[in-house]
Amino acid sequence: MGFTVYEIAQLIGGEIIGNAALQLDSLCKIQEATPGSVTFLANPSYEKYLYTTQASAVIIDKKFKPAHPLSASLILVEDPYIGFTKVLNKYQSLLNTPKIGIEEPNYLGNHVTLGEGIYRGAFSYIGDYVQLGKGVQIYPHTYIGAHAVVGENTIIYSGARIYPGCQVGKNCIIHAGAVIGSDGFGFAPQATGSYQKIPQIGNVILEDDVEIGANTTVDRATMGNTRIQAGTKIDNLVQIAHNVEIGKNTVIAALTGIAGSAKIGDSCVLGGQVGVAGHTEMGDKTMVAGQAGVTKSYKAGNITLMGMPAIERKKFLREYAIFRQLKNLFSATKSS
Amino acid sequence: MGFTVYEIAQLIGGEIIGNAALQLDSLCKIQEATPGSVTFLANPSYEKYLYTTQASAVIIDKKFKPAHPLSASLILVEDPYIGFTKVLNKYQSLLNTPKIGIEEPNYLGNHVTLGEGIYRGAFSYIGDYVQLGKGVQIYPHTYIGAHAVVGENTIIYSGARIYPGCQVGKNCIIHAGAVIGSDGFGFAPQATGSYQKIPQIGNVILEDDVEIGANTTVDRATMGNTRIQAGTKIDNLVQIAHNVEIGKNTVIAALTGIAGSAKIGDSCVLGGQVGVAGHTEMGDKTMVAGQAGVTKSYKAGNITLMGMPAIERKKFLREYAIFRQLKNLFSATKSS
Amino acid sequence: MGFTVYEIAQLIGGEIIGNAALQLDSLCKIQEATPGSVTFLANPSYEKYLYTTQASAVIIDKKFKPAHPLSASLILVEDPYIGFTKVLNKYQSLLNTPKIGIEEPNYLGNHVTLGEGIYRGAFSYIGDYVQLGKGVQIYPHTYIGAHAVVGENTIIYSGARIYPGCQVGKNCIIHAGAVIGSDGFGFAPQATGSYQKIPQIGNVILEDDVEIGANTTVDRATMGNTRIQAGTKIDNLVQIAHNVEIGKNTVIAALTGIAGSAKIGDSCVLGGQVGVAGHTEMGDKTMVAGQAGVTKSYKAGNITLMGMPAIERKKFLREYAIFRQLKNLFSATKSS
Repeated sequence: MGFTVYEIAQLIGGEIIGNAALQLDSLCKIQEATPGSVTFLANPSYEKYLYTTQASAVIIDKKFKPAHPLSASLILVEDPYIGFTKVLNKYQSLLNTPKIGIEEPNYLGNHVTLGEGIYRGAFSYIGDYVQLGKGVQIYPHTYIGAHAVVGENTIIYSGARIYPGCQVGKNCIIHAGAVIGSDGFGFAPQATGSYQKIPQIGNVILEDDVEIGANTTVDRATMGNTRIQAGTKIDNLVQIAHNVEIGKNTVIAALTGIAGSAKIGDSCVLGGQVGVAGHTEMGDKTMVAGQAGVTKSYKAGNITLMGMPAIERKKFLREYAIFRQLKNLFSATKSS
Repeated sequence: MGFTVYEIAQLIGGEIIGNAALQLDSLCKIQEATPGSVTFLANPSYEKYLYTTQASAVIIDKKFKPAHPLSASLILVEDPYIGFTKVLNKYQSLLNTPKIGIEEPNYLGNHVTLGEGIYRGAFSYIGDYVQLGKGVQIYPHTYIGAHAVVGENTIIYSGARIYPGCQVGKNCIIHAGAVIGSDGFGFAPQATGSYQKIPQIGNVILEDDVEIGANTTVDRATMGNTRIQAGTKIDNLVQIAHNVEIGKNTVIAALTGIAGSAKIGDSCVLGGQVGVAGHTEMGDKTMVAGQAGVTKSYKAGNITLMGMPAIERKKFLREYAIFRQLKNLFSATKSS
Repeated sequence: MGFTVYEIAQLIGGEIIGNAALQLDSLCKIQEATPGSVTFLANPSYEKYLYTTQASAVIIDKKFKPAHPLSASLILVEDPYIGFTKVLNKYQSLLNTPKIGIEEPNYLGNHVTLGEGIYRGAFSYIGDYVQLGKGVQIYPHTYIGAHAVVGENTIIYSGARIYPGCQVGKNCIIHAGAVIGSDGFGFAPQATGSYQKIPQIGNVILEDDVEIGANTTVDRATMGNTRIQAGTKIDNLVQIAHNVEIGKNTVIAALTGIAGSAKIGDSCVLGGQVGVAGHTEMGDKTMVAGQAGVTKSYKAGNITLMGMPAIERKKFLREYAIFRQLKNLFSATKSS
């Protein structure tokens, strides 16, 4: 498989400086690039690699002025990162054609609705009354409980589990081992000290274009829905508790936990290992630094939070600076 | 499926104010309730919803005095939360009858002991010498290793793994993807810098009425047992290391890690993302706030811990207040 | 199964004080030992148990001088922990012979290369062009994607998932539910506020003697490799992001997250729930305390880090001490 510099420039709407006919056969990071590859430069701190890279072509910002002479051909674009992503997508679509067809053995319940062009891997389990849209790819060992719905072109990787009655939108990707719709963690303390399980009769709704990472868990609602809105991307090993609602185009990094009934807005970004307390509300465009613990609501959004308990970033950094000054003052007093 | 207000009042021993013959067909939260539904009011901060809810009936504290007129019928009880939970249980028992019977294909080893009324889902794997009590439900893709024992009426959801020789009590629930009995994390450093694996020849014992969340892991003991006592409830994505012992009726929230040989008492409550250091001991009725790191023993119990390293809550809040005062003092000094 | 004291002394090169002919039939911890068992004493804080243990034999440091008379036979060695581990290994090798043979049904793709003496459990899935070395043990419900390679004598427990194209070395152990090769978490923000998935066309390489804990996730590289070098041991529920590189003989405890493109050196030890920021570099022999957040590079290594943001341990403890003094000073000022 290969592209010419010309073909790539055509694909991403770029302007060529150098040899348009050059043949390229791989995609690399700039610091690891091999001859015959195409790479990109988006982050200015990687500019140093530009002058030594072995890549044959570099996708680069059209406003960029090189400080030294270059051996690679350049493809000038508005946004090199988006441009390179387009090439990656093209490359992957040539490599990975969608899986289709039925492997045996598999289990298919009664009253199942199946769209066209579906893949059902060996040992996949599709319960009664399940609806699978066209082009759905169900990898081996996947479990889809009764009455669940999976939208068009969604990919469910090996060993993911969709509990009964849950709904997954179109063009979603659910990675291996993810669990959608396990019981919410709700127990009523009894006078004896033991706990009685509170039935969890709600469900989970994942809207379109949602990605769920490997071994991530999304609990069903006690009543009503746990809902993740369109375009939201969730990393590996994240816990989403019962009745949580997450807005559109929000990104949540690995090992984060969102406790019960919390509401997260649109276009938020949560770092890794963040904790969000139950029944709190986080407005749109909230950023949360890794390991922060959000213990109360920040409904207005448009804020960056850090620390445990999480406070506004500016405040956090100011307090940290004051602490350092106090410390120095104290050390000076002692030594004087 | 439906209940009358009268039937619900009978079920939970409540007194009716309003229309006893009213037909109810769903259960909702008070702020989301639809006409024809029954809801409850337990948390006083939700009282505002009582005057606008569309629910047809509300389960409520018998000592409650409404501040405004109400349209819904009331069912008066001692504890509205417990009362509503009873209704939820009744509703769920009508909806979800226990699964029973054998789906094909499945794998059944030799010398297996099977109680009556068992469900074994497609692609479930039951190793040699396994014992399954009556009414056990084994969902698809579940793995039960040789010589494991599962008590009566326990439910093991899809893709849970019970390693050989582990014991699960009666009336337990193990959610999808949970792993019980993987090797403890023990390695002996060698002179060369490499690590030699220490064989993990112990097992895991889960007593009766234990619930284990989705993708939670419980490691087998190096020698002896990792033990979780009766009535303890563990959320999703929790790590329980080798030789940990957890008492009765303890509750552990998601993403918490308990390191090797730690002992946790009865009736403790651990928040999300808590870390507990190895070989520490935590007495009965210890509460640990989310994200706290418990680095030493608190054997006496009856304490609330916060922070990293975790200290008593009162002390933590006092130190935090002093820090704030110091900061203000310092800021005042600078601006004066 | 049993050993005499003499046989154990032979096995571990120890000297006997007491009855060499004594028959031993189990291995225990010193504080839980039963008559007829062998145990060991390595940690001086457990010496108190030595005088009351019911063990029949104790493996002990040859320089140790007992403070009180002992009933157990002693086996004197240079390093009692390593000695006892040898006995454990011997015991386990007698108990657990490697699994071998094929259980039905299972799925075997085309063009698969199979070594001798392989175990393939029921419902295991081996994709096209997979290569399995001799003595590989594939437990039930395991998924090995197309073109993956698994080296000699590696054990893959139930329900682990190896995505297509990933490489696992010799003598590795991959525990239940682990996911190797899921997509890296990479998305390009679009002008509309939505995210476009960046194809993840790299892979994962696990070198020889690596152990991966239950439900741990290791993402494939965007381009190139996510690589874990020989002898590294990773606990349960750990997240290793795309393009991470981890050196040799490094140990990582549960619930730790390593963000994208981070580099971890050789012989590091990371505690539980540690977070490591993306694109940082950690030198050889770095120790990181549990729950620490490593936000920048420490390339020189040979350092112990604590806190969030993580700083050198000595510095952390000094600052903590100063804070305590400040607090006392402040309290004194107020009460004077």
